[in-house]
Amino acid sequence: MTDDARADRARDGPGDAERLVGQGVDRREDAALLTGDATYTDDIARPDLASLTFVRSEVAHADIESIDTTAAESMAGVLAVYTWDDVADSEVPGVLPISTHGLDCDPPGHPVLARDRVRYQGQPVAAVVAEDRYRASDAADAVDVTADSCPAVVDQREAQRPDAPTLYEDAPDNVAATSELGDRETTDDAIADADHVVELDLTNNRLIPTALEPRAAVARWDAGDERLTVDLTSQSPHGHRGKLSTTLDLPESDIRVVAPSVGGGFGHKGHHHPGEAAAAFAAMDLGVPVKWTATRSGNYLAGAHGRDHRTAAELGVDDDGTLRALRVETDANVGAYGLGSSLGMPGWYGSLLSGQYDIPAIHCETRAVFTNTAPIHSYRGAGRPEANYVAERLVGAAARELDLDPAELRRGNQITEFPTETAVGATYDSGDYELGLDEALDAAGWDDLRSRPDRDDEGRYLGVGLACYVESTGGGMESGVVRAHSDGTVTVSAGTHSHGQGHATTYAQIVADELGVDADAIGVREGDSDAIPQGTGTFGSRSTITGGNAVAESARAVREKARALAANLLDAPVDDLAYRDGVFSAPAHTDETRTFADVAEAAYGWGVPDGMDPGLEATTFFEQDETAYTFGTHVVAVAVDPETGAVDIERYVALDDCGERINPTIVEGQVRGGVAQGIGQARYEQAVYADDGTLETDSMLDYAVPRSFHVPDIETEATVTPSPTNDLGVKGIGEAGTIAAPPAVVNAVCDALAPLGIDHVDMPLTGDSVRSAVRDAGE
Amino acid sequence: MTDDARADRARDGPGDAERLVGQGVDRREDAALLTGDATYTDDIARPDLASLTFVRSEVAHADIESIDTTAAESMAGVLAVYTWDDVADSEVPGVLPISTHGLDCDPPGHPVLARDRVRYQGQPVAAVVAEDRYRASDAADAVDVTADSCPAVVDQREAQRPDAPTLYEDAPDNVAATSELGDRETTDDAIADADHVVELDLTNNRLIPTALEPRAAVARWDAGDERLTVDLTSQSPHGHRGKLSTTLDLPESDIRVVAPSVGGGFGHKGHHHPGEAAAAFAAMDLGVPVKWTATRSGNYLAGAHGRDHRTAAELGVDDDGTLRALRVETDANVGAYGLGSSLGMPGWYGSLLSGQYDIPAIHCETRAVFTNTAPIHSYRGAGRPEANYVAERLVGAAARELDLDPAELRRGNQITEFPTETAVGATYDSGDYELGLDEALDAAGWDDLRSRPDRDDEGRYLGVGLACYVESTGGGMESGVVRAHSDGTVTVSAGTHSHGQGHATTYAQIVADELGVDADAIGVREGDSDAIPQGTGTFGSRSTITGGNAVAESARAVREKARALAANLLDAPVDDLAYRDGVFSAPAHTDETRTFADVAEAAYGWGVPDGMDPGLEATTFFEQDETAYTFGTHVVAVAVDPETGAVDIERYVALDDCGERINPTIVEGQVRGGVAQGIGQARYEQAVYADDGTLETDSMLDYAVPRSFHVPDIETEATVTPSPTNDLGVKGIGEAGTIAAPPAVVNAVCDALAPLGIDHVDMPLTGDSVRSAVRDAGE
Repeated sequence: MTDDARADRARDGPGDAERLVGQGVDRREDAALLTGDATYTDDIARPDLASLTFVRSEVAHADIESIDTTAAESMAGVLAVYTWDDVADSEVPGVLPISTHGLDCDPPGHPVLARDRVRYQGQPVAAVVAEDRYRASDAADAVDVTADSCPAVVDQREAQRPDAPTLYEDAPDNVAATSELGDRETTDDAIADADHVVELDLTNNRLIPTALEPRAAVARWDAGDERLTVDLTSQSPHGHRGKLSTTLDLPESDIRVVAPSVGGGFGHKGHHHPGEAAAAFAAMDLGVPVKWTATRSGNYLAGAHGRDHRTAAELGVDDDGTLRALRVETDANVGAYGLGSSLGMPGWYGSLLSGQYDIPAIHCETRAVFTNTAPIHSYRGAGRPEANYVAERLVGAAARELDLDPAELRRGNQITEFPTETAVGATYDSGDYELGLDEALDAAGWDDLRSRPDRDDEGRYLGVGLACYVESTGGGMESGVVRAHSDGTVTVSAGTHSHGQGHATTYAQIVADELGVDADAIGVREGDSDAIPQGTGTFGSRSTITGGNAVAESARAVREKARALAANLLDAPVDDLAYRDGVFSAPAHTDETRTFADVAEAAYGWGVPDGMDPGLEATTFFEQDETAYTFGTHVVAVAVDPETGAVDIERYVALDDCGERINPTIVEGQVRGGVAQGIGQARYEQAVYADDGTLETDSMLDYAVPRSFHVPDIETEATVTPSPTNDLGVKGIGEAGTIAAPPAVVNAVCDALAPLGIDHVDMPLTGDSVRSAVRDAGE
Repeated sequence: MTDDARADRARDGPGDAERLVGQGVDRREDAALLTGDATYTDDIARPDLASLTFVRSEVAHADIESIDTTAAESMAGVLAVYTWDDVADSEVPGVLPISTHGLDCDPPGHPVLARDRVRYQGQPVAAVVAEDRYRASDAADAVDVTADSCPAVVDQREAQRPDAPTLYEDAPDNVAATSELGDRETTDDAIADADHVVELDLTNNRLIPTALEPRAAVARWDAGDERLTVDLTSQSPHGHRGKLSTTLDLPESDIRVVAPSVGGGFGHKGHHHPGEAAAAFAAMDLGVPVKWTATRSGNYLAGAHGRDHRTAAELGVDDDGTLRALRVETDANVGAYGLGSSLGMPGWYGSLLSGQYDIPAIHCETRAVFTNTAPIHSYRGAGRPEANYVAERLVGAAARELDLDPAELRRGNQITEFPTETAVGATYDSGDYELGLDEALDAAGWDDLRSRPDRDDEGRYLGVGLACYVESTGGGMESGVVRAHSDGTVTVSAGTHSHGQGHATTYAQIVADELGVDADAIGVREGDSDAIPQGTGTFGSRSTITGGNAVAESARAVREKARALAANLLDAPVDDLAYRDGVFSAPAHTDETRTFADVAEAAYGWGVPDGMDPGLEATTFFEQDETAYTFGTHVVAVAVDPETGAVDIERYVALDDCGERINPTIVEGQVRGGVAQGIGQARYEQAVYADDGTLETDSMLDYAVPRSFHVPDIETEATVTPSPTNDLGVKGIGEAGTIAAPPAVVNAVCDALAPLGIDHVDMPLTGDSVRSAVRDAGE
C-alpha cells in the first residue's frame, strides 16, 4: 500500500476492524453455481439454433486426397457441410493466429479445417451444421474422408532424429524454436568445479485439461447491426475477440464476445480453438445462430494439452551443501500446431529454475519440438510446475547423495535478500523463504516424520518429502471500471473473467472497503467484451493483482470525486470533509451530512458544480510492471505398498505466502484445488499416444483424473509477506498448488523407496510404475 | 466551435473539402431497416418465452368489486393470472413513479394493475401469463371483473365544474397543477392599452402516437446472476432502468435495459408504462422469460396520448402592427394518471408563446386537469406545437383584423438581437429570423401566391398561410464514449437511442472528422444500459446537440491521447506532430510515421510511456447548460373545395435553421417527417372520447393517421446560423415540422375561407369540419 493509500484509509472508510478485506466472507457466486441456476454456454437456447459438429481426422498424419460430403449434405436437417475449400472461397483467413516471435521457422497457424494435410489425430477436417446435434452427428459420420497416411512421430526426442517424419518443411528436425537462458560457460565451469554433480533425466508428463464444462460456443450474426456475437466459455473475452477478428477478418468493433458462467478453465479456455471460429463462420454464412459444444472425447483429442517436457538436468553441489550450478536441457513437445503464443512458451519456464535458491550459475537450453500430437498450450502453472519439478527433484536427489536433511540443504541455500535477481533473470520482489520453510516443517512435524521407521506395521515403506517453490504471478494490463448509479448502487467490471476464482466476492470486498459502501450494494460483472474498454483475462495467477488493483484504483477515484461532489453539496472545503460509514460530513462547517447515495444522485443531475463532469465512475488500466513472486513450502508424508505400488498420502501440509489475502477462504480454496491437480499430475494423469499418433487416453475411462477420494486432507498454512509491487500488496495464488505438489509427492515417494536403493521414480506414480520400480530393485 | 477546436482542425485531420460533417452521406442503418434484417423487441424469440396479456377495463371510471380469475387459471397453458393483490403481496411498490414537483395535489402514481378503482377505459386490471399469446388472450377473456361504474368526465373544462366526478379526493376540481408564466398585471395593462385585441378560443386536438411498432418488452430474470434484463422498445434505456428500479424496488445495478431497433417513438417510448413493469414482475415471479407486446388497440387505449389543450387567448396589437401583449389561459387535459413528469408538462409550453416576436408583455396561466382518459405525456413537439399554434394563429388573425400582409406583420415584430430573453423567460441563443422569413417567402413566391384570385377555375377557394416558429432544443446531460480497439477500429456509444433519427450515420460522421479515421472503421452502438455509464435518451430534439457533442468531445480526447502515444512512438515532442489522413508524422525529427491503428495497437500493449494509462478511449458527459433555439418559417398554399370541405395542399415550403447541419439529408428527412405529422394534426388526427369515457377512435379504422398520399411534396430550404451554445454549433431538428405545420396549414385554410367571412376553423380540418364551417357561413 502506498503512503497515500494509507493516509486515505486513516481519514476515510471503516476502521480496520470493520474492513472486509482479509475476511473469509462467503462466496456470493456459490448459490447459483451449486443449485444449477448459473447459465453456461451450452445452456443457451434459441428457437432457431443450429448445431455444428466436426468431422475429425482418425489418423495422426496424412495427406487429404478427397472429402466426399454428398451423402451428408443430402441428409434431413443438414444445413451445410464445410471443408477448407469453403473457407478459402469465403476469403477469410480461416487460420488461428500465432505469434511467430522468436521462432526458428515460420509455421502456418492452425487452420479451422484441415488444409491438404492433417497433423494430429482429432484435427477438424470438416464441419457439419444441422438443425440439431443428433442430425449433425449422424451427418458427420456420413462424410467420407480419403487420406493418404504417412508416418507419425509423437515423442519430442524422436522427432529430432534424422529419420523422423517431417511436419513442416521449414522446421528442420521438427524444431520450432530454441531458447537459452543464463550463461553457458559460467555454468559449465561451475558444474566442473562442484564437489558433486547430481544428474536426473526427468519427464514432465503430458496432461489433458479436464474442466467440468468442455469447450463450447454459440455464435450469431446480426445482419441488421452487421455484428457478430459469440457466447463462449472463455477465460479472456477480449482476447478471444481479438483472435476471432484475425481469423475471420472482421474489425474488433464488429465482434462481441460474451462469456457466461465458465465451468473450469485451467488455461485451455484462454486459447483460440477451431470450434468458436467455425461456429462464427457458419453463423455468418448461414444467417442462423450456431452452437458448437465439444464432446469430452473431442476435447481430449483436440483441446490444447499441457506440460510434456523431457529434461536432462545436472546440479552441482559442494560437500557442505552449497548449490553451485544448474544445467538444464529440455525438449518441449509443442504438438502439431501453435495456438496463440504457445510455440514460444517453453522459454518462459527457464526463469523459475532457480526456485527459492541462490544458485550462482544456471544455464537452460530449451527446444520446442513439433510432433503429431494435439497442440500444447499453457495449462494451470504453465511452465512453472515444469521448472519447479526440475529444481526440487534435483535438490531432493542432492540431499540424498550428500546424506543431508533435505530441509537443511534447502535452508542453507535460500535467498534472503529482496529484491534479488536470479541467474536466470527473474527479480523476486519480496519474501521470507526461511520463515515459510520453518512454519511448514513445524506444522508437519518434520523431525517426527523423518524419524519414523522405514516401514510401518503393514510393511509399507514410509517416506517424507518436501518442495519449496517460487511462482511468478500476474503481469500485463487489466482494466477495472467502478460505476456508481444514480441510486447509489455500484457496478464493478473488469477485463478478467472468473471461472471459479470468486472475483465477484473478492472485488466486492475490495471496492466496498475503498468506497465505504455496503458490499450488498455492489454488483460485479465480467465476461462481456462490450461492457468495458479492453481486458486481458484470467490466467497466470493474475486476476487479483491486476484486476483487483484496477478496481481498487477506480474505486478510490470514484470516492475522491464523490468527496468533491459532497463538498459542493455541503458548501464546505473538500479538505475539511470526513467520510465514515458511507456518510460525508463537514463538522467544522455544517451539521448536514450526505450519504454516498445522495452524492450519486446529485452526480447525474443537479449537484455537479461548474467545471466538473457529471457522472460518478472511473476506469483504470492497471499495468503490472513488476512481477510478484508467491512462494511456499509443501510437506508430504507417504506410505508405499511394495506389493501393489499403492501410494497413500498420509499428510499433506501446504504453506503458501501470496502476500495480503483479500479473502483467506478463497485463497485456501485455490490452494486445495491446485494441490489436487498437482497430485493428479504426480500420481494419475498422463496423456498416452501410441507410436502411430493414436491417443490412447481419449476418454475419462482411460485418462485418470483424480476423484475426491484420491485427494487427501490438505492442511493449509500461511505466512503473509506483502508485495511491494502493488497497492493491495497481493500476489497470485491460482496455480501454486500445481507447482508445489508434484515434486513434494515424488520426493516423498523417492524417500520412502530409498531403502530399496531406488533413486528416482518419475511421474505419474501409478501403482504400476511404482510396483515396476520396486520389482526392478529386486523386491 | 471554440477557438481551440478551430485550431485543432487547422492542424489536424482532413481539410474542409474532405470533411464528412456537412455531407448528406447515406444512412448506414437503412439497409437493415428496409430489408427486415433489423431486430425489434417482438422479434426476440426464446424457446421458453411466455406471453403476457392484459385484462383491460372496459369502462372509464369504476370501483372494482371483485376479480374472478378461477376459470382463467385453470385453462391449458396458463402460468399465472395476476391482480393488484399479487403485486401487494409481493411487497414491490408496483406503481409507476411520477414527479410531484409543482403539483397542487399528491396523486398516487399509475399502478401496474388497477388498485380498487379504474380511472380510464383500457386501464390494466389483471395480467395473464401463458405459454403463448393465443392462450394468454383466451384466458384474459375468461377473467371476470365485476365493477361498479361511476360517472366519468373526459373534457378538461367540464372536469373543473362543481358537479363533475372527482378522480382524486385531494385534487379539488380535478386540478392537478396550476402554473403561471410572465407578469399578469403588466399584461392586463398592455392588453387594455392596445389599439386592437384579437381573441381566439383554440383547441389543440388530442393525438395518439402511432409508431409502426407498438410498445413491447421481453423481461428475463437471471437467477444465477440475480439480475433483470428487459429488452424494451425504448427511447431512453437508462431512463427506463431508473423507473423500473423504482417500480420493482430493485437496485439499478441489478437491472439491464436493452433497446433493440425501435420502430418509431414520438415520445411515448420515453415513458414508463405498466407493460414492461408487469412483464418484469412476471418474469421474476415465474422464473421464465416473459414477452408483452401491445395490440394496436391496447396501445391506442392505454398508451400515452399527446396535446389536448383548450386555450382562451388574446393578443393586443397597435394600429401600426406592433404586438403589445399576449394573454393566455390554457386548460391542459392530463388524463387519469401522471406518467413520469407528465403532470408538470403544461408548464413547459408557456415559455415558447413569444415565438419569433418581441412581445413585451405575456402572461400565461395553465391548469393541468385530471379526466377519465388515457394519460397524456409528451408527444413529438411536447408543448411547443401547442404554444406555436396559439401564437401563430393569433398573429394570423391579427393580420386579418388589421388588413396587413401577414408576412409584413411578422417581419415588423421579429426579434433581431441575440441573445434575447423573452417576456416568458426564454433566452434565445442565436438566429436570423428575418433572413429565414425572406428566404421562405422567396422560395414560395409569396407575393404571387398572395395575388391569386379568391377562387380557382374549379370554384375552390385559394389561400396562403405561413407560420414562423422557434423551438427550444436539447437540454440535460448526455454521455458519449469513443473507444478505439487494438486493431484501430472504433466503437462509439452514447446514451441517446436512435429510433429513426440516424444517429449511427451522424455520430460516425462527427467522430470520423474529429479522429481523422475512416467512417467505415467506426461502429456506433446505442441502446444498452450496461454499455455506458449513464444516459438520458432521445427526445426533445436533443440527440445531436447532447450526444453529438459528447461523442465529439470524447473523440477529441482520444485524438489527443493518440497524439501523445504517437509522440512517444516517434520519439518526437508532442507539439511537433502533425496528423493528417489518419497518419501521425514528425517531419522535423523523423521520416517514420504511425497510423492511428499503429497507435491503437500500442495503446493496449507495449507503446505506453511511463505515467500514461494504457488504453485509448474517452467518456464525456456533455451538459447542455444553455438551450439552443431552432427556428424557421413554413409557407403553405391551399385550395379548399366548399362543396366537400376537401383541402388540397398545393405547395408546402419549409425553411428551417438548425445551425450547423451534420447531415443535411437526415435533417431534411426529419423536417419531412415532422411536417407529415403536423399535417396529420392539422387535418386528420383526433382522439375522440364519448361522454362516458369510451374511446371511439381505438383502432386505425377510426383514428386517421395520414397516409403517404395525404402528404404533399415538401420543399425544404435552409439557413444556417450556428449555435454558440456548443462546439458543433448545432441545434435540434427532430420536432420542428410538428411545430410549424399546424398553424401554417390552418392559417392558409382560414385565408382561403376569408371571403366567406370565416375567421377561424379549428383542427383537425377534416372535410366534415371545413364543410360545416362553410355551411355555417351560409354557403
